Amino acid sequence: MADKKFHVKVTVTLKNGVLDPQGKAIEGALGSLGFDGVGSVRQGKVFDVNLNAASKKAAQEVVSDMCEKLLANTVIENYAVEVNG
Amino acid sequence: MADKKFHVKVTVTLKNGVLDPQGKAIEGALGSLGFDGVGSVRQGKVFDVNLNAASKKAAQEVVSDMCEKLLANTVIENYAVEVNG
Repeated sequence: MADKKFHVKVTVTLKNGVLDPQGKAIEGALGSLGFDGVGSVRQGKVFDVNLNAASKKAAQEVVSDMCEKLLANTVIENYAVEVNG
Repeated sequence: MADKKFHVKVTVTLKNGVLDPQGKAIEGALGSLGFDGVGSVRQGKVFDVNLNAASKKAAQEVVSDMCEKLLANTVIENYAVEVNG
């Protein structure tokens, strides 16, 4: 039964080689603000999902499924799922 | 001297109490896709910043400054800075 609460953190980032214009814009803006030594900036998304599941493993599987179907575009993005009891 | 490379992960999330329509939309979409037991979803942003700094502490301070000035809207958002050597 789905009776335990889990807090799951999902991080979705662009794959290497995929252009990130937003990250480039931030790099430029940081330079304009006087920050030196900035190599590169990549922007991604993070989702905090609270859900009920039978076990930590079940929560991990359900959220991975969510990523495949909705949260990430797996053609250009990677995702990482981190389940906290 | 700014000679060491650091990889810094910045996570920016909405403060509690701030409405998150995007998160609400994702909750609804997950329900439509048949995912049960989803309590709440909050969306945030993540930035991967590569920079050169004199020390881990210096990198932390520089990136916190970036958050205050550009990366986060501190009126409605919290930020967390995680420096990896």
